[in-house]
Amino acid sequence: MTRIAILGATGYTALELIKILLRHPEAEIEAVTSRQEGQPPIAMIHPSLTDRLDLRLEDLSPAEVAARAECVFSCLPHGASATVIPHLLDAKMRVVDFSADYRLNDAEVYAQWYNQKHADPQRLGKVAYGLPELFRRQITASQLVANPGCYSTSAILALAPLLKAGLIDPKSIIIDSKSGVSGAGRTPKMTTHYPECNESISAYNVGRHRHTPEIEQILGTAAGTSVEVIFTPHLVPMDRGILTTTYSQPIKELSEEKVMQTMRDFYDAEPFVRVVDHFPGTKDSMGTNFCDITVRVVRGRVLTISCLDNLIKGASGAAVQNFNLMFGYPETTAL
Amino acid sequence: MTRIAILGATGYTALELIKILLRHPEAEIEAVTSRQEGQPPIAMIHPSLTDRLDLRLEDLSPAEVAARAECVFSCLPHGASATVIPHLLDAKMRVVDFSADYRLNDAEVYAQWYNQKHADPQRLGKVAYGLPELFRRQITASQLVANPGCYSTSAILALAPLLKAGLIDPKSIIIDSKSGVSGAGRTPKMTTHYPECNESISAYNVGRHRHTPEIEQILGTAAGTSVEVIFTPHLVPMDRGILTTTYSQPIKELSEEKVMQTMRDFYDAEPFVRVVDHFPGTKDSMGTNFCDITVRVVRGRVLTISCLDNLIKGASGAAVQNFNLMFGYPETTAL
Amino acid sequence: MTRIAILGATGYTALELIKILLRHPEAEIEAVTSRQEGQPPIAMIHPSLTDRLDLRLEDLSPAEVAARAECVFSCLPHGASATVIPHLLDAKMRVVDFSADYRLNDAEVYAQWYNQKHADPQRLGKVAYGLPELFRRQITASQLVANPGCYSTSAILALAPLLKAGLIDPKSIIIDSKSGVSGAGRTPKMTTHYPECNESISAYNVGRHRHTPEIEQILGTAAGTSVEVIFTPHLVPMDRGILTTTYSQPIKELSEEKVMQTMRDFYDAEPFVRVVDHFPGTKDSMGTNFCDITVRVVRGRVLTISCLDNLIKGASGAAVQNFNLMFGYPETTAL
Amino acid sequence: MTRIAILGATGYTALELIKILLRHPEAEIEAVTSRQEGQPPIAMIHPSLTDRLDLRLEDLSPAEVAARAECVFSCLPHGASATVIPHLLDAKMRVVDFSADYRLNDAEVYAQWYNQKHADPQRLGKVAYGLPELFRRQITASQLVANPGCYSTSAILALAPLLKAGLIDPKSIIIDSKSGVSGAGRTPKMTTHYPECNESISAYNVGRHRHTPEIEQILGTAAGTSVEVIFTPHLVPMDRGILTTTYSQPIKELSEEKVMQTMRDFYDAEPFVRVVDHFPGTKDSMGTNFCDITVRVVRGRVLTISCLDNLIKGASGAAVQNFNLMFGYPETTAL
Repeated sequence: MTRIAILGATGYTALELIKILLRHPEAEIEAVTSRQEGQPPIAMIHPSLTDRLDLRLEDLSPAEVAARAECVFSCLPHGASATVIPHLLDAKMRVVDFSADYRLNDAEVYAQWYNQKHADPQRLGKVAYGLPELFRRQITASQLVANPGCYSTSAILALAPLLKAGLIDPKSIIIDSKSGVSGAGRTPKMTTHYPECNESISAYNVGRHRHTPEIEQILGTAAGTSVEVIFTPHLVPMDRGILTTTYSQPIKELSEEKVMQTMRDFYDAEPFVRVVDHFPGTKDSMGTNFCDITVRVVRGRVLTISCLDNLIKGASGAAVQNFNLMFGYPETTAL
Repeated sequence: MTRIAILGATGYTALELIKILLRHPEAEIEAVTSRQEGQPPIAMIHPSLTDRLDLRLEDLSPAEVAARAECVFSCLPHGASATVIPHLLDAKMRVVDFSADYRLNDAEVYAQWYNQKHADPQRLGKVAYGLPELFRRQITASQLVANPGCYSTSAILALAPLLKAGLIDPKSIIIDSKSGVSGAGRTPKMTTHYPECNESISAYNVGRHRHTPEIEQILGTAAGTSVEVIFTPHLVPMDRGILTTTYSQPIKELSEEKVMQTMRDFYDAEPFVRVVDHFPGTKDSMGTNFCDITVRVVRGRVLTISCLDNLIKGASGAAVQNFNLMFGYPETTAL
Repeated sequence: MTRIAILGATGYTALELIKILLRHPEAEIEAVTSRQEGQPPIAMIHPSLTDRLDLRLEDLSPAEVAARAECVFSCLPHGASATVIPHLLDAKMRVVDFSADYRLNDAEVYAQWYNQKHADPQRLGKVAYGLPELFRRQITASQLVANPGCYSTSAILALAPLLKAGLIDPKSIIIDSKSGVSGAGRTPKMTTHYPECNESISAYNVGRHRHTPEIEQILGTAAGTSVEVIFTPHLVPMDRGILTTTYSQPIKELSEEKVMQTMRDFYDAEPFVRVVDHFPGTKDSMGTNFCDITVRVVRGRVLTISCLDNLIKGASGAAVQNFNLMFGYPETTAL
Repeated sequence: MTRIAILGATGYTALELIKILLRHPEAEIEAVTSRQEGQPPIAMIHPSLTDRLDLRLEDLSPAEVAARAECVFSCLPHGASATVIPHLLDAKMRVVDFSADYRLNDAEVYAQWYNQKHADPQRLGKVAYGLPELFRRQITASQLVANPGCYSTSAILALAPLLKAGLIDPKSIIIDSKSGVSGAGRTPKMTTHYPECNESISAYNVGRHRHTPEIEQILGTAAGTSVEVIFTPHLVPMDRGILTTTYSQPIKELSEEKVMQTMRDFYDAEPFVRVVDHFPGTKDSMGTNFCDITVRVVRGRVLTISCLDNLIKGASGAAVQNFNLMFGYPETTAL
């Protein structure tokens, strides 16, 4: 049994995390934190937890957290995470960080994309990136795991096998992603106000989305050479789910069968990646930890289509998968 | 040609109003106001107006408004409207007020439901209620018209004919309404945050919604006696549309045919009420100034089902219908 | 471990049932049937089951089903169920029937509402109604359980405690229900075609919905006297969820506290009914086996508001709850 | 005044066409046809037309149509259109055809993409393509106009100016389109069944969608050389709207300002194309005949984002725009 604390428990990823952990036979949620005034019961913030989790939100110091739990899931925003996590690590806790703070290897790249100095720069480059399909061994051995971005997972899982196999040109990649609205978080904003975004699709942050450097770094590792992508995110009127369509130039002429076989071989033993023949819809993986992938070759260009639930495989499901690896539980437990 | 100013032009009712007025051959929008800083072009606030209305939002005094226009549509919130409108009326302008400020006859009832003293109480009781189907003559002659609430219109149009005809018990009425999210306005809130209200229906303000006294007052006028209703609004995951289902006890046994005929007779000459045999969906009247009504008798009880677009017949369409009556244009112009 | 067969496995209730049973430690799905030609893998019909359930749809006789399983979940349509189930019972199988065939006690009432003669009339009146909150003992001992209708569960759970306690007039009940579209099944129809029902709410089958006699029968049992309801279902643009608002006349004056306390006392020990103070939204119970209930007293009338997921507590979750009771597993297993 | 007949009036494009024509001061709808049995009133098929259009659906021969109208809008499916339209043209009628039958210049390309022989091949290559922004002069003079496909319009309007100006490589173009569900027509299918496509996005017909040859042909005309595109359509859970994101390689290095200026210059005088700086959402043009376009340059690649309402600028609005040109009415009438 592992005692768990969840930092920043008022958002959607924390809610999904709690729901998964509630059915995990070896996890016990001992604390949920927030700066919310008045320490309300968490079920007041998330009514779906009524009668399921009898805890109040607390504003706890790292020491107080360490006294209650062995493992922390930090759902704090970027910037905040890197100021708290060093203290948790010093207190011998193991941590899964949902923020972007420990995903990038380079503090300058971080500063450039996140518009702030990194609070814990000397740790960068030594943290496992929480994508078990690529970094299972490192995750298992890590005290701190950087949980990937939701778009990043959908793009990396689709492209890494092709880059690793040297099939596609690492400078030719276009990533056109479509995400449900929960990806934008739980703070009400004009862009996520129902009558604004319902019945409408739009692009945003074109060429400037913060998952770009993360995708390039991890794909670069897979390719063994630097990778450049054009990444276009779109906001789709649905609660959850990401569909990512990628386009890339093969190094030499490629058949669809060859690309598909490369993909199937790569994910053959993976419990949460399904390589499929049909066109997956995001609903097929909704509420699950699966990522569904298919490929096509059109006019010589390689297309991949990948789907996942941004709150599960794109966040909290991946976090529990990482937790299972870190603590020696079967990887699929509760997922 | 009538010159028009729109006060409080950043919300959804103002946007719909502008779209209708843009196709009105006798209306010229001369000013759109807001306290928004920096006087942005209105198309920056409402991108759908790009290349359609070349005006900036301005913060104008009543005198400045009067210098530009003969008619004001006030989309200001309740409370604010009643402080501005007296000045507009003094300046000889004619006004359609979207707020609740001039709908009720009694300042005490207003104070009780709106938690504030009325700023212009002596005018209450002398203002035409802008429902042409019931008050066409008064509207035509009025300097100031109180545009009805969206729920109110859907309920009153369904029930007034039956109360006027003395068919139903005025103390037996239950009104169960379902509204799209635009009815909650354009300010982002947790309850209208997409991932909160999408794929969910909920009741709110049960027994305490502010359209209750307005419905009771107008139905009381129709019935010639006091009317009491139980009013339950629900929030439905759709942009626009209200469906109202009412249940009432007949005074004596009634056939469906009799009720239907009463309804048909009442609305026979009305351009914007369609009495139908089928069950109307809100989509049938979406984007139009129609209210669709049908009736059923079940186990002796009288049921009405009425649908309208909360932003058109429930707000801006009705406002233009009132404007047409006030300025002597054909009532259906631009609608 | 119990071996299970699912009859009529191509619809939504079967899909949800499979998802629940896949995480049930004591259930093994051994057969899934359909008349679908070609015995396709079930994952071809339900892509979300890819890599999760490796069975083909088969067209099996009752004897073949009995050779494979001890328990049958029949998701066959009404009419078909009553022709197959007698053979399954003869073969000593235990059965949870999703159809309406065994819900009513009276073959004449069945014939009147379902427009067909009942195929197995002598069994009516002896079958447990699968609502554990009211009939737990009978369910536990039953070979055949009639799983309730989705609307029925939402209305019965809200009203039975008040009728049992003699608080409300059994002839005064109005039930205004709002359901997501999955309740209409998986066969494409004009009314469930996306551009027809999206962004629209409408009433249907007013006063004639087939859950009416079932609600009246079960509430009659609770009340100890005959009950009459007016039942109005509405179709809401969302996948799943039912919100039911009821209105009834108290026998004598009642406080909200009294009604709420009656409800809390009744469901105190129930694992799947949450009596709440706030207004529940259907999303709070989405994907769970919970039914959330609150009450209000408005102008002396008693209102209940209840929410559940039509595919879980309204169908497949309830079925597994019944299965757990029938086979002696902890009632909440897998739920 | 022009007398109009609409062939195949039961679908969504016909419904939108009727709504537009009802506010057209110079159009009179004289006949609406369908093979539907029993000649029902059109308002029975489209309830939103209740009290607005008092016509019955009729099954009329070309001669009967010609006796009633001067202009035909054919909403018949491809294949059917080309068997009827020659007779209408012989009867001296002018025709706007919504189908794909007269869009392509080459009967072999048609046969290859539509899996059937063309019924009127000798007319191909002589019919105006109904995109006024590119072919205004031809449309004005034509007896028959081929109304463009919805995806085609969104892609062509975004790319033609850049190809005409020689800015982008005609073999490098990727078109990633996202469409609302009404684009799939009004016949209920599993893919458009609400619980299947709601809350889900998926790609379909990748590399094989029938708008591909049409896009390539028209862009080829614009470029003055053959054009090849990769076209990936996606189905988005919303009623209407298309957002198209394109990616192409510039011939030589290009600034965003230069691309934007090319676009602005090209559409400077166009009433229905808005070149905007912000990222347009499909809602901005919903219910209007506008196409909104913006451009970005990312890592040297040229991106365009264009939005339109698939039923208006992508179908019926464009058809009326063509009609206005053909009959000498102001081009923006009723739009």
